[in-house]
Amino acid sequence: MNAVTTDREALVAAMREDPRLGPLLARVDAAMDDDPGHDLAHVLRVALWTLRIGADTIDPDEGVAAALLHDIVNVPKDSPDRARASELCAAQARSWLPEHGFGAEAIERIADAIRDHSFSRGAVPQGPLGQALQDADRLEALGVIGLFRCVSTGSRMGARYFHDADPWGRRGRSRDDRAYSIDHFFEKLLGLHATMNTAAGRAEALRRTEYLRLTLTQLGDEIGEAY
Amino acid sequence: MNAVTTDREALVAAMREDPRLGPLLARVDAAMDDDPGHDLAHVLRVALWTLRIGADTIDPDEGVAAALLHDIVNVPKDSPDRARASELCAAQARSWLPEHGFGAEAIERIADAIRDHSFSRGAVPQGPLGQALQDADRLEALGVIGLFRCVSTGSRMGARYFHDADPWGRRGRSRDDRAYSIDHFFEKLLGLHATMNTAAGRAEALRRTEYLRLTLTQLGDEIGEAY
Repeated sequence: MNAVTTDREALVAAMREDPRLGPLLARVDAAMDDDPGHDLAHVLRVALWTLRIGADTIDPDEGVAAALLHDIVNVPKDSPDRARASELCAAQARSWLPEHGFGAEAIERIADAIRDHSFSRGAVPQGPLGQALQDADRLEALGVIGLFRCVSTGSRMGARYFHDADPWGRRGRSRDDRAYSIDHFFEKLLGLHATMNTAAGRAEALRRTEYLRLTLTQLGDEIGEAY
Repeated sequence: MNAVTTDREALVAAMREDPRLGPLLARVDAAMDDDPGHDLAHVLRVALWTLRIGADTIDPDEGVAAALLHDIVNVPKDSPDRARASELCAAQARSWLPEHGFGAEAIERIADAIRDHSFSRGAVPQGPLGQALQDADRLEALGVIGLFRCVSTGSRMGARYFHDADPWGRRGRSRDDRAYSIDHFFEKLLGLHATMNTAAGRAEALRRTEYLRLTLTQLGDEIGEAY
């Protein structure tokens, strides 16, 4: 691609026209399953934000390639290989990228970034590419997208929206984000901004956290119990 | 109950202590199934807002009784009796309420309010009780509660969050709120405030619609396509 873009439509158009990224996009599209939490739309949002966060500290093609491949191997949540998912994705990247015109050093950077991005692995990426990718992926748990994913994932697993008699968990009950979607705000989402690597990522994380806090305040008014 | 309350915890405590409403609450709790869109938590939120909206124009006990019974008969969405659900609930109210100490005129008001509240039926309630109940029930489609219900219902029916390449439906595609949860905003939610009966209900509907609009603006920024 010629330039960093931060507009979704322009980004996808530029990817499709690029001789390296166009075929890679098609290959990723064909290989992904239909898990709505990790589908091509998620991958493209992560690509957009990797570019927005990485800005002039990363090579845009490497940022897009890392985002395209960061979830390419989907390991089920209950598999013993789950913690190794990002390593498996990095290996897939090493295998595919030579065929797409990426050089050895670029492939190392991309594969390292993919290996280190995962939340459950807890690694802190060292290079700007890994830091941008990890931040971009973490943003997907915040804001409107994060709220949608929290509610739909909870709903698919049988969670209620919130504990009816103690929505904020202030009266001595144990919080349980498998049982109540709002509990996930307190168990993970509201603290996520503190784990961001970059100033740009942190700024966007704080903006999205602000939306989640506003959501709690608004909900408190709707249900008659102030947050 | 002695007084109109607009705080959830105080409301539930007052209901439990009331000689008419306490047993009715227990009876409703035992009779409802576990459809998360129409569970006891929904019923209690509708009770809270029926009192907030009805204020000094309705009898509080009648407001609570109408809310408790407004969804007491759950007709499946695909049943031919679906459009008659609110009539069936009104009949149940007429059958139960004499045993709970309500007089004939109160029962008429409550049953009429329940019969007329449903969105799909399209009736405009004539009395203040029916108007407050209908407004309170419509508020459940807006704000944070409305967003949660929209996303979880969509998710259970296999909808995606939004159309990836044309999220706002501006490029000639037909909107389809069975396929995309965000399309439901445009097909129903954003126009709902115009159907409210009361000034208090309309004010709260506008507040909740404002939250939904803010959600769209925030989402547009997250996905790189301005709303």
